[in-house]
Amino acid sequence: MTASREEFEARLRQIGAERYHDKHPFHHLLHSGGCTPDQVRAWVINRYYYQSRIPMKDAAFMSRVEDPALRRAWRSRIEDHDGRDGNEGGIRRWLRLAEAVGLNADYVASAQGVLPATRFAVDAYVRFVRDKTLLEAVAASLTELFAPKIHAARIEGLLANYAFADDSSLSYFRNRLTEAPKDVAFGLEWVLDHADTAEKQDAAANALIFKTDVLWSQLDALHSAYVDPARIPPGAWQPGTGLMAQAAE
Amino acid sequence: MTASREEFEARLRQIGAERYHDKHPFHHLLHSGGCTPDQVRAWVINRYYYQSRIPMKDAAFMSRVEDPALRRAWRSRIEDHDGRDGNEGGIRRWLRLAEAVGLNADYVASAQGVLPATRFAVDAYVRFVRDKTLLEAVAASLTELFAPKIHAARIEGLLANYAFADDSSLSYFRNRLTEAPKDVAFGLEWVLDHADTAEKQDAAANALIFKTDVLWSQLDALHSAYVDPARIPPGAWQPGTGLMAQAAE
Repeated sequence: MTASREEFEARLRQIGAERYHDKHPFHHLLHSGGCTPDQVRAWVINRYYYQSRIPMKDAAFMSRVEDPALRRAWRSRIEDHDGRDGNEGGIRRWLRLAEAVGLNADYVASAQGVLPATRFAVDAYVRFVRDKTLLEAVAASLTELFAPKIHAARIEGLLANYAFADDSSLSYFRNRLTEAPKDVAFGLEWVLDHADTAEKQDAAANALIFKTDVLWSQLDALHSAYVDPARIPPGAWQPGTGLMAQAAE
Repeated sequence: MTASREEFEARLRQIGAERYHDKHPFHHLLHSGGCTPDQVRAWVINRYYYQSRIPMKDAAFMSRVEDPALRRAWRSRIEDHDGRDGNEGGIRRWLRLAEAVGLNADYVASAQGVLPATRFAVDAYVRFVRDKTLLEAVAASLTELFAPKIHAARIEGLLANYAFADDSSLSYFRNRLTEAPKDVAFGLEWVLDHADTAEKQDAAANALIFKTDVLWSQLDALHSAYVDPARIPPGAWQPGTGLMAQAAE
C-alpha cells in the first residue's frame, strides 16, 4: 500500500536514525579527540576519495536528466564541490584540511594509498547513480538529511580536541552546513513527489539504505585498517608517508 | 622496457607472494581451527556472494570476446560453477558446505545478510571485467595461480579442526584443486602472449593487484564484522539467524 507523504518521509528519516554513519565508533573516536594524528590523516585521505567522486556522481546524474529545470536545480552541487568565481569549492577546502593535518595535498589528491574498500564503496555509489532510476539516484542523495547534525558535532569536537582545527582547516564543514540543507530540501521534495506508488517508495527507501551502507563501510574499513589492532591492507597508506615537508604533529 | 616472458611471469607471481589473501589473519584463524561456528558461517555466507558472481563475471567476459576459440576455452569456467550433466557445479557444492555448517541453503542463496563491503568488492570485480580490456580481465583471473595452495591448506586445516568437515562438505575445494590449475594455465599463457609491450605488462600487473585487493578486502570486512571486537554493520547477518531447522553446532 502506498504510504502517505508524511508516513513515507518518516520512513526515510527512520533509515537515517538506524543506519547513518554518525553511529559508527570511528566518528565517536574522531569527534571526542580519541584519534591519533595518523588516524585523522587516514580519515582525511580516504574521505578525500569520496569527496572527489561526488561531482562525478552528480555529472552522471545530470547526464541522464532530460528536464532542463531539474538539471539547473542540480548543477549547484557540482559548483559547490568544484568551485566557481569567489568560491574555491569543497574539494580545495578538503585539501586545506589535509595540509592542516600535515599531509601533502598532492599526495592526497593523487588518491594513492586510499583503502581498496573505500574505492569499491565509493565507485559503487557512482555506478548506482549512473545505472539506477532517477528516483533511486535522488533518494540515495538524501543521506544529506542527516549530515548537518554530524557536521556541527564534528566542528565542535575537532575544535575542542585538535590543534590543527581552526576556521580555515574546517571551512569545508562550515560550508556544508548551509549547502547540504539547500540541496536536500530540493531532493526530499522531489522524492516525495515522485515516489507515488508503494513499489517506488520501496525502491527509494532501498536506495537510501544502499547509500548508508556506502558511508558505513568506509568507516568500517578505516577502523579495521588504522585503529588498534590495526591491519593495514597491502598497498594502502602507511603512517609516516605522504607528509608535507614539515609535518605538524 | 618490455620485460621478457620469464621476467614478466615472475613479476606476476611476486604480486601473489606479497598480496594474495592467504596472508590475511582471517585465513590463519579459519585454517587453524580458531574460528567459532558463527565465524565459519559468516565466511560461508559472504564467500557465497563471491562464488555466485563468478559465472556472471565470466559471462561478461565472453560477451566481449569475438574469437570463438577463446570463448570455447573460457566456457568451462561457467560450467564448473553452474554445473552440467554429471557435475552439480561449484555453487551447489558451496551450498552443501553451507548446510554442513548449519545454515539454511535458501538463506545463503538469497544473499541477504551479505556484508555491504563484500558486495561492493565483488561487484567491482564484475564491473572491472565488463569495462576493462580483455587483457586486464584475463590478468585479473590469475589469482587462481595462487589458489591451489590455499585450497589444499584449507582442506587439511578444516578436516583437522572442525566436526562439519568431510568429503561432502569440502567437495567444493577438492574440485577446485583440479579446475583452477587447468583454467589458470590457459589464462597465464594468454596473458604472457598478449602483454607484449611494457604498457600492457603494467596494465596486466595492475589488474592482478586490483584482484588481490578484491579478495583481501572481503576478509578485512569479515574480520572487522565478526572477529572480536566484532562490529557487525547495520543489516548484515546476525549470528543465530539464517540457520537450518536443526542447526548443528
